[in-house]
Amino acid sequence: MDKNIPYKIYLSEDELPKQWYNVRADMKIKPAPLLDPATGKPVTLDQMSGIFCRELAKQEFDNDTPYIDIPAEILDFYKMYRPAPLVRAYFLEKALGTPAKIYYKFEGNNTSGSHKLNSAIAQAYYAKKQGLKGVTTETGAGQWGTALSMACSYFGLDCKVYMVKVSYEQKPFRREVMRTYGADVTPSPSDTTEVGRKILAEFPGTTGSLGCAISEAVETAVNTEGYRYVLGSVLSQVLLHQSIIGLETMAACDKYGIKPDIIIGCAGGGSNLGGLISPFMGRKLRGEADYRFIAVEPSSCPSLTRGKYAYDFCDTGKVCPLQKMYTLGSGFIPSANHAGGLRYHGMSAVLSEQYDEGLMEARSVEQTSVFEAATQFARIEGTLPAPESSHAIRVAIDEALKCKETGEEKTILFGLTGTGYFDMVAYQKYNDGVMMDYIPTDDELAKSFAKLPKI
Amino acid sequence: MDKNIPYKIYLSEDELPKQWYNVRADMKIKPAPLLDPATGKPVTLDQMSGIFCRELAKQEFDNDTPYIDIPAEILDFYKMYRPAPLVRAYFLEKALGTPAKIYYKFEGNNTSGSHKLNSAIAQAYYAKKQGLKGVTTETGAGQWGTALSMACSYFGLDCKVYMVKVSYEQKPFRREVMRTYGADVTPSPSDTTEVGRKILAEFPGTTGSLGCAISEAVETAVNTEGYRYVLGSVLSQVLLHQSIIGLETMAACDKYGIKPDIIIGCAGGGSNLGGLISPFMGRKLRGEADYRFIAVEPSSCPSLTRGKYAYDFCDTGKVCPLQKMYTLGSGFIPSANHAGGLRYHGMSAVLSEQYDEGLMEARSVEQTSVFEAATQFARIEGTLPAPESSHAIRVAIDEALKCKETGEEKTILFGLTGTGYFDMVAYQKYNDGVMMDYIPTDDELAKSFAKLPKI
Repeated sequence: MDKNIPYKIYLSEDELPKQWYNVRADMKIKPAPLLDPATGKPVTLDQMSGIFCRELAKQEFDNDTPYIDIPAEILDFYKMYRPAPLVRAYFLEKALGTPAKIYYKFEGNNTSGSHKLNSAIAQAYYAKKQGLKGVTTETGAGQWGTALSMACSYFGLDCKVYMVKVSYEQKPFRREVMRTYGADVTPSPSDTTEVGRKILAEFPGTTGSLGCAISEAVETAVNTEGYRYVLGSVLSQVLLHQSIIGLETMAACDKYGIKPDIIIGCAGGGSNLGGLISPFMGRKLRGEADYRFIAVEPSSCPSLTRGKYAYDFCDTGKVCPLQKMYTLGSGFIPSANHAGGLRYHGMSAVLSEQYDEGLMEARSVEQTSVFEAATQFARIEGTLPAPESSHAIRVAIDEALKCKETGEEKTILFGLTGTGYFDMVAYQKYNDGVMMDYIPTDDELAKSFAKLPKI
Repeated sequence: MDKNIPYKIYLSEDELPKQWYNVRADMKIKPAPLLDPATGKPVTLDQMSGIFCRELAKQEFDNDTPYIDIPAEILDFYKMYRPAPLVRAYFLEKALGTPAKIYYKFEGNNTSGSHKLNSAIAQAYYAKKQGLKGVTTETGAGQWGTALSMACSYFGLDCKVYMVKVSYEQKPFRREVMRTYGADVTPSPSDTTEVGRKILAEFPGTTGSLGCAISEAVETAVNTEGYRYVLGSVLSQVLLHQSIIGLETMAACDKYGIKPDIIIGCAGGGSNLGGLISPFMGRKLRGEADYRFIAVEPSSCPSLTRGKYAYDFCDTGKVCPLQKMYTLGSGFIPSANHAGGLRYHGMSAVLSEQYDEGLMEARSVEQTSVFEAATQFARIEGTLPAPESSHAIRVAIDEALKCKETGEEKTILFGLTGTGYFDMVAYQKYNDGVMMDYIPTDDELAKSFAKLPKI
């Protein structure tokens, strides 16, 4: 072990960031504006405020302010589970026999089991401040729903969660955690909304998708007095809140003189990846430093590696504004892989633009190789990772093994977004040797692309 | 918030304890010796070494050495998940409106989800050092089995786990975590051992107990070449390893000038309670400070509050040595409450002696009131606690509310031993309002006491 770098780096409370960082302020080309599908014109703040809390809608439009103060109430809540440790993976390095230095930022040390709480508490705070009664949302793997339940419970808000059916069935205990924090949970698609009934009629037996669940949550929010909709990923406001991950990581790196060469994160809607890399991307955009960024997605839902950069709906039911992003088409329903949090057809507009400009790389990996990496990591580093996070582990191990071949002493940093305690059905399949890999065919994707809106 | 005391106190790596503390060295009356049931004479080191690893057997007999160096390999492993934070429960204090100051030592930030890893890694280390092939053990709630699986995986040892049937059924995902770390898991009682078959014949349909599972694990260890048995609680060696909890807590308290008046822990076999209080008890025994210690046990398995202080078998199958302890009788099988880790008929000999001398208090609580406290705590402090740990939360809240009545500004410290992610069946029962309380009748206990061995 390097005597100067402890196994786990914890910042002290007074070293915690007091502001979020908005990477859009440093981007030369801003993310394209959200469009109203009825008119094809940019959505206005007033329109957005009918769906989202007003302050959050403002953050969604703000492409200019680089730093935004974190309200004191949120800073207090952050202290309950932050700082998250930056861990030097000494044991993994040794087991791999690599000259690379491997670090991971571990966001799983809270009851939601992931980084999602960082944005959930912010969104609940602004809802409460606006005097709302409650919020609706969707959840995939269940991490966002759990996080939002915790946040709403803290501020005394009602919380209605539409949970992607495949996750609802694979993770019955997730539902109970949400209930323990006082939330209502409905499997999606459901017959409680018009859009849910329509999707069920068109695709009977569907295991659902984040896109469906979003549509149902939005419909319910718009139709219920005193409610707004909140979303755990994709949106630029979410990346803003999640920048806390990257800011803490950067502060820890700077304090100990750690200079990452490669920064790796799993990418579903982009909340974790965007949060982790934003401050580093800011330095790259300002020409202060250079990094390789790698987004890792499942082969079964390859929005960056095989998607189109185009305007598309954010949800299957087409009730949300259009966003320009890398997308597989809002009608694409990925096969039932075990990383529920990465089954989204699109990608954050911010990350999509950065990817399009070549500021970031992307890679897709198959789930058996992901669980192989997950199990290896669990046994060597102790922590049982979430399937989502394990996508980043897979590529971090691959990069470390490349260094072993070339002898390069690169510094590899990845985001360990959460724990796998609620993913044991998936681990059981892997342990029993019956896990399958799914890759959509070109034909399947072409059919989905054909339905992209004409803008 | 008190500006001088952060929400979470993390010691730095170089402040971590390098030695375990053996409270027996400071006890005027030592725990009574273990007896051979065949002869009624004290068990010898050689006899013990047939069941346990030799170095661990030595620790079991050592009533004199106050501090024992922690081997470097174990210190390295500890760094993976320690230091555990000492948390100031600012949010709980505020919600209760109490003048009391509440602290908890949180041991749940590792994949086993509890403090059990502290002793598991030590026991696996000594087994490896002795050149063994593997170890056997029992697990109740599954926390110890998970911890031991992780520890064995780290040192490349085989791990056979007998899991109390009620937990095996309530916690299917626990089994998969253990499998992911490479362990074999068998529900107990089973037909794989002689003692298991005998218990099944005598009590068909039994949901099992720690006492049964211990018997099966010991029988398998003794009959398998290159194996020894390891135990996650009760034994004095386990309390020695778990003293890391109390030593860290004490170091954090001393650093920040925190002087606990009351120290509270849940008590099953005593591993957590003994680990947390030992160093403080040492100060009390040496006359350097005074504290109130409160052991909290379930009303359904009240070994301290309603048991006898007598020699008894440590296991239902009567294959282990006799130990003098507070016990409900080794034939006592507690009703199926939801704190699997507290369903043991006896209590650590060290704690039993301290309790008998009036150095410690004990209290029993019913499970619905425990889950009420658990849910309250989860919503206020964020962390979803294990049912076992929630026994301590119940009494901590009760004591804080007493302070509210009297206006006393007491400092209350409790052990939050673990997380409840694998206990959602129990939480569901509580959420659905169908949880039951069980209290054994005097008659039931009298029948069990009548079968205590005559020593």
